[in-house]
Amino acid sequence: MPHTAAPPRYVLHPQLADDTHPVATLALSEMRLMDDANYPWLILVPRLPDARELIDLSREQRSLLTEEIDIAARAIRDAFRPFKLNIAALGNQVPQLHVHVIGRDQGDPAWPAPVWGRVAARPYSPDLLVERITRLQAVLPG
Amino acid sequence: MPHTAAPPRYVLHPQLADDTHPVATLALSEMRLMDDANYPWLILVPRLPDARELIDLSREQRSLLTEEIDIAARAIRDAFRPFKLNIAALGNQVPQLHVHVIGRDQGDPAWPAPVWGRVAARPYSPDLLVERITRLQAVLPG
Repeated sequence: MPHTAAPPRYVLHPQLADDTHPVATLALSEMRLMDDANYPWLILVPRLPDARELIDLSREQRSLLTEEIDIAARAIRDAFRPFKLNIAALGNQVPQLHVHVIGRDQGDPAWPAPVWGRVAARPYSPDLLVERITRLQAVLPG
Repeated sequence: MPHTAAPPRYVLHPQLADDTHPVATLALSEMRLMDDANYPWLILVPRLPDARELIDLSREQRSLLTEEIDIAARAIRDAFRPFKLNIAALGNQVPQLHVHVIGRDQGDPAWPAPVWGRVAARPYSPDLLVERITRLQAVLPG
């Protein structure tokens, strides 16, 4: 009897798993905090096997992700009151589809440039990590 | 008789007007081509007065913009077949809400870094500009 290939399964990319901490599970995406205390920086990872580009999503998935980007951006705004929000889907280095939602301030280490490749990440201390995640969870809807 | 303030009106930010060329008028946004031949690089500017952040949009406007980002990304893909798409709303330097949709290739001058702040823009020659815009318009729906 021939083997039937198992359908592809969503697994968080190991680089994203290493670089981030879990915050919340949304309808489509994992919401995770980038381990960089330089900026309040969330990552949304849709739990879809093999998604690489936003155009890989169905209209329904795109719409859901758009609302989850809105939830993440409002959470960053409400918890940290940044000067500006930066939102981006790049994926040049980690192919798994993920969206950056970052709070920016005029005094932050990369301002006004985008954050990527500017200064080394500053990993959270355990206490600050708990404080940041608690603050985010407190402003998330539901 | 007191003057009544006119309602705010959408006007394309002069920096965006300087840096880009018109490609198409979508339901919500102006689609414009960044004057940088290093990358196929579209900018979407929603015609909304005072919009600065994606969270400033209503759900209906967000949904429309999401579909227009999809249109722009598919146009870049169909016209130029890039290796990767980069999509971002940053606005640290130009406050008017605008979304970057950029085709990236493994041999482009900034790869694998994001494009911002890497190499000087390479303005289009008139002939190449016409060729690029024609190629984009030919793959746009409707």
